[in-house]
Amino acid sequence: MSDTVDELVAGLFRSDARATARLITLVEDEAPEVARIQSAIRDRVGRAYRVGFTGPPGAGKSTLVAALAKHWVNDGESGRVARVSIVAVDPTSPFTGGALLGDRVRMTSLDPSVFIRSMANRGRLGGIAATTDGVCDVLDAYGSDWLLVETVGVGQSEVEIAECADVTVVVLTPGTGDSVQLLKAGLMEVAEIVVVNKADRPGADSLVAEIQSIVGMRPHSDVPMPIVSTVATENKGIDELAKTIEEYRTQQVSRGLLETRRKRNLRAKIQRLVEARLRREIWGGKGASEELDATVECILRKEETPWDASERIVKKWIR
Amino acid sequence: MSDTVDELVAGLFRSDARATARLITLVEDEAPEVARIQSAIRDRVGRAYRVGFTGPPGAGKSTLVAALAKHWVNDGESGRVARVSIVAVDPTSPFTGGALLGDRVRMTSLDPSVFIRSMANRGRLGGIAATTDGVCDVLDAYGSDWLLVETVGVGQSEVEIAECADVTVVVLTPGTGDSVQLLKAGLMEVAEIVVVNKADRPGADSLVAEIQSIVGMRPHSDVPMPIVSTVATENKGIDELAKTIEEYRTQQVSRGLLETRRKRNLRAKIQRLVEARLRREIWGGKGASEELDATVECILRKEETPWDASERIVKKWIR
Repeated sequence: MSDTVDELVAGLFRSDARATARLITLVEDEAPEVARIQSAIRDRVGRAYRVGFTGPPGAGKSTLVAALAKHWVNDGESGRVARVSIVAVDPTSPFTGGALLGDRVRMTSLDPSVFIRSMANRGRLGGIAATTDGVCDVLDAYGSDWLLVETVGVGQSEVEIAECADVTVVVLTPGTGDSVQLLKAGLMEVAEIVVVNKADRPGADSLVAEIQSIVGMRPHSDVPMPIVSTVATENKGIDELAKTIEEYRTQQVSRGLLETRRKRNLRAKIQRLVEARLRREIWGGKGASEELDATVECILRKEETPWDASERIVKKWIR
Repeated sequence: MSDTVDELVAGLFRSDARATARLITLVEDEAPEVARIQSAIRDRVGRAYRVGFTGPPGAGKSTLVAALAKHWVNDGESGRVARVSIVAVDPTSPFTGGALLGDRVRMTSLDPSVFIRSMANRGRLGGIAATTDGVCDVLDAYGSDWLLVETVGVGQSEVEIAECADVTVVVLTPGTGDSVQLLKAGLMEVAEIVVVNKADRPGADSLVAEIQSIVGMRPHSDVPMPIVSTVATENKGIDELAKTIEEYRTQQVSRGLLETRRKRNLRAKIQRLVEARLRREIWGGKGASEELDATVECILRKEETPWDASERIVKKWIR
């Protein structure tokens, strides 16, 4: 790499797409330059509003995100054109899966002013959330007004992504039966706005009713949760969804909740960074792999249990 | 709890279901007794064959797992009745979601001799894989011949669960379009046997063809990957799937690959245990929460970047 970090950051501040893309790659690769990058951009981080989108595969998240991006680019707040960036960390997303695997890209005619970044790296030492967060910071400093983060939500990943977002939108579809199961099983923990996409399909009304009854069972069900119906492929309901998100943000800001939320996210971020560093320190060092193999043999010879082995290793490392 | 760990373990070895359930709860809760439990059962761990099932929500994994369990209970190897245990860590599974949330249990008439354990705890310090692995060890010592672990696979969780299993079965269905995307995006990394369930639906043949072409693109495509078509609700293809899994195991054992696989899993297990302990040590200690809050304020005052803060914290803890 010939450009220095300072040159790339200068490019980022000029909204140069190429420099931005290269900085993102450094962050994704957890390169040694990350410390410098964080330090150089920190005064420009915090302006973008980060919207996380999660839901089961096939819910139409990518199409919805693309439609919203177009909405905000065209109808930017206060007259000027808004800058929108999309980060896709969903292995089923056409942004990600399509770009990665040469598959057909289902998304067409997205405004060229929208910056799209697909993240397909899974199982890195730092975890997906650590990297996503860093990429969002770069795109924040790039000058994004809206940062849309898309991820598939059916396991633990949605909780991690919720920790990177200012608001989490859960996207469901009628007719699959899994939507309600997923909502009950965990998505409700992170949902702040619910979208019923593909709302022209049979069962949309009953899905909305089911969601309302689940929402009513929450511990703090006095806070109404917005439920918006959309048909993203036909651009239906997108204006209303955009308005709902904008109102949510206004409420958060006026009640001081955005600050609280960002502090909570920052706490989680520090923890993730520390854990990633510890993993690198302990498992990435010289001789670490051979030591681990020796421990495995020890356990197989019944000289030690896995539990005892882990205690021994921790004691060796921790002060 | 009035029973001592020794009493519970004695109950486990007598195949007492109540004692077994209580030991599992201790493991799930990451109770201090876990070290004693591991040590007491270690000579009885390793006999069960662990089959992991993963795939998108709605693929019919629970029904398939239940049908297989019935098959093995009824047609146990070498004449005697096989003991089968099921561990469900899938938030969309009727075993888990149903039991937890009072939903209708779609599964009916499962043989009472099958031990079913649902795990719904998400986001614990140790992570789902650490707990699942410990629960499997208890059910192994209980005398299970077959341990069937079901998890939804669309993010990182399937990789973790693959690290607990002797073989990973990926379950897909025709007609959704997402199956192939998921397979490309990550499920292929863990797939050793692929099931096309709901094979009576339109598109089953073309899904099989698509899977075959993806399988052919693997780096080691000289090793054939079995693809089995089933209709679990009608018990179709279950015999063939059982036979395929049994043959896979026979091959693994005769070529010494089961031992290699278990060593690799044990390595991953040690790493998970160490990381869980470190997390508890660093974030669970007295004053840790207040210190984290102070760090957040420090970062917000721009006195420190998150990166620098994480370095400082790591240096404080690591020798």
